Amino acid sequence: MTDSNDPKHRVSRRHFLTRSALAAAAVPIASSGLAAQAQEHHHPATGTEPFWGEHQRGVTTSPQRHTYFMAFTLTTDKREDVIALLRAWTQAAAEMTQRPAVPAGAASPDQIPEDSGDTLGLPANRLTVTFGFGPTLFEKDGVDRYGLASLRPEALVDLPRFPGDQLVPERTGGDLSVQASADDPMVAEHAIRRMVRLAYGTANIAWAQTGFLGGFKLGETPRNQMGFKDGTMNVQTTDPAAMKEFVWVAEEGPAWLRGGSYMVVRPIRIALEHWDRMKLAFQEQTVGRHKISGAPIGQKHEFDPPDLDAEDKEGNPVIAENSHVRLAAPASNDGVQILRRGYSYDNGVMHLAERWPPWRQATTFDAGLLFQCYQRDPRTGFIKLFAKMSAFDMLNQFTTHVGSGLFACPPGARPGEYVGQGLFTEA
Amino acid sequence: MTDSNDPKHRVSRRHFLTRSALAAAAVPIASSGLAAQAQEHHHPATGTEPFWGEHQRGVTTSPQRHTYFMAFTLTTDKREDVIALLRAWTQAAAEMTQRPAVPAGAASPDQIPEDSGDTLGLPANRLTVTFGFGPTLFEKDGVDRYGLASLRPEALVDLPRFPGDQLVPERTGGDLSVQASADDPMVAEHAIRRMVRLAYGTANIAWAQTGFLGGFKLGETPRNQMGFKDGTMNVQTTDPAAMKEFVWVAEEGPAWLRGGSYMVVRPIRIALEHWDRMKLAFQEQTVGRHKISGAPIGQKHEFDPPDLDAEDKEGNPVIAENSHVRLAAPASNDGVQILRRGYSYDNGVMHLAERWPPWRQATTFDAGLLFQCYQRDPRTGFIKLFAKMSAFDMLNQFTTHVGSGLFACPPGARPGEYVGQGLFTEA
Repeated sequence: MTDSNDPKHRVSRRHFLTRSALAAAAVPIASSGLAAQAQEHHHPATGTEPFWGEHQRGVTTSPQRHTYFMAFTLTTDKREDVIALLRAWTQAAAEMTQRPAVPAGAASPDQIPEDSGDTLGLPANRLTVTFGFGPTLFEKDGVDRYGLASLRPEALVDLPRFPGDQLVPERTGGDLSVQASADDPMVAEHAIRRMVRLAYGTANIAWAQTGFLGGFKLGETPRNQMGFKDGTMNVQTTDPAAMKEFVWVAEEGPAWLRGGSYMVVRPIRIALEHWDRMKLAFQEQTVGRHKISGAPIGQKHEFDPPDLDAEDKEGNPVIAENSHVRLAAPASNDGVQILRRGYSYDNGVMHLAERWPPWRQATTFDAGLLFQCYQRDPRTGFIKLFAKMSAFDMLNQFTTHVGSGLFACPPGARPGEYVGQGLFTEA
Repeated sequence: MTDSNDPKHRVSRRHFLTRSALAAAAVPIASSGLAAQAQEHHHPATGTEPFWGEHQRGVTTSPQRHTYFMAFTLTTDKREDVIALLRAWTQAAAEMTQRPAVPAGAASPDQIPEDSGDTLGLPANRLTVTFGFGPTLFEKDGVDRYGLASLRPEALVDLPRFPGDQLVPERTGGDLSVQASADDPMVAEHAIRRMVRLAYGTANIAWAQTGFLGGFKLGETPRNQMGFKDGTMNVQTTDPAAMKEFVWVAEEGPAWLRGGSYMVVRPIRIALEHWDRMKLAFQEQTVGRHKISGAPIGQKHEFDPPDLDAEDKEGNPVIAENSHVRLAAPASNDGVQILRRGYSYDNGVMHLAERWPPWRQATTFDAGLLFQCYQRDPRTGFIKLFAKMSAFDMLNQFTTHVGSGLFACPPGARPGEYVGQGLFTEA
């Protein structure tokens, strides 16, 4: 089952074409990225997403309102323990995506309830659960724990250190990743909690980050915490040709990963207090777009393509050399595109002490972007894009990458299989 | 404007009486607490709550889906700075509750935008902003910074240390509190962020905690992270007599606080991993209720009153001596009731290292209950209740109070006033 062939998506797309103000303005729909997905934010909470299929569903759904990402560290030395965990996780995910809680599992007084019960009575809220394999699953500290080292894909590299990286171990890496996304935060939390429980004795929590999206209207590109529309240009999950070209691993990858993808995740702290003190014109130059309309600098409408060659009367570029939009544009990157699926995060506040004069101390927001992207090959995707952006993007003055992970996300499983089964049967 | 006289509430109540399955079962509505409020969870997100009125609206609304609580530390020595801050906060709250973002404030290129812009296009989502005054506003380290020491209410005590308290400074106290609650997490975050910005130079962030509620159905009592229905017995905000008796400060309090209330806030970490390993019967004995139905042990239906005198054949109490329900029951506490308005919280995970043998280290959920309650007098409310419960409640094996605050929440303001104005005009 591919998403593009899913009748529900076709209906939604038609609905979008009929009703959206964007369509009325005759903008090219193909460029609308997240906007095309945002229409589905208002699906009834009772919606369910299929679990079994060609691709993992969490890569392709219209973004849910809440997410809970967690990375795990395997503590077992036994290959069969890993397989048993993946089998249990797959089964639990298949169940929970259709019905978040398992009442029967909580009904016998003299037993430990199988299900924590906190979501009893809640609908599935479009829950998806997405799994990934980190480089250390294949080899860790030079040890091939599970006989998988020879199957590590070439593209599953160790991410290089980028300029400005301030990665902390408590937010970095992981042997396995699980991400639950749903339109209800409790449903996402419940799913992750069950995964943690199923992992007792086999894997520990490595790190985690929750995230959310504001409930923007149908057809509207969501705004991020910096106040700008985010996702105007993005790979469309409803465009099978674009997904094939930029997202899904094909013949170039190992058989077990075909139909899967590589996912980069980076919690990026945003210095909101700092950003909020910048003049509007500077914010817009930094991003390369107008704040209210979302139009590229020099244009009128959000979906007008940025004119990267335009110059003002003095011969200066209209869109600043080191603006975010210019550096991220496919035209500046040999046509490279990645599928971004980011969420805002807000962990409350954190206490900072500067390590250099004037030794200021402050309590600031621990908030920002849980950046996530999917791509066919991280070397020609995120790494290529971010190598340049990490050095030059004016936005970097306000952002700090505090964590990082790269995970190979296997294709979807078919009933009776477990996610990633191909990896273990190949070996 | 009182909530009980608000026509919208009357309509909602009728709606509840007509449609609820609880009504069909002929249970006493008056006992249904949060259940009566839960009906309104599904208000359209475009709903707005009035800001001006007799009481602060955040005490009385049906609970919104998301909350953002923040405590502040005043850094100024000047009384007029505090007044100016309260005036600016009041004005901003009055605006944002009706429309979350201020587009005009972001429109001039050569100015710093007044509004961060991230909620442009979002409806108000029933936003409320609620203010409170901590004991240290009146006197701090023996210093009467603002000439308010003589006006500190007797009931605004320093909370005693309770058995088991493991309060950390980063989650405790505060001169002022601001709480934004809304049905969209971005709207709540935006409101708090604007308050932080308005406080630059006058007050710093002390601590903060976000929270959420699952989207349970109309008329259903929400479940908490322990899987039990939470709020079956609660003061009803739609019952003016109960609010008057248990929540609103009246003649016994200072003039500036009449129509206000005292709010206790305690982030309570729940050892979810530990709880999830307990047998169902033990969980139910601990709580004193059945998990699935919510009925008191020995009863059939959620709203059946607990029979605290019932004994089994061996003469043991049917509801365990130290069960949560027994210790919290008004009948066990001279009729004391408090208005609870708690939220679940989940900050992701935390890294623990035991300080005693066997020196275990672990990464666990940093999750639990953002407990909040309102009462007419904390000495006869929370302190009385929790003095006993902190010593004996079986639930304490799974819960740790990691932070604490007590705030006097002034009455609502009238147009042209600022919240708490009475305090500063009395002095």
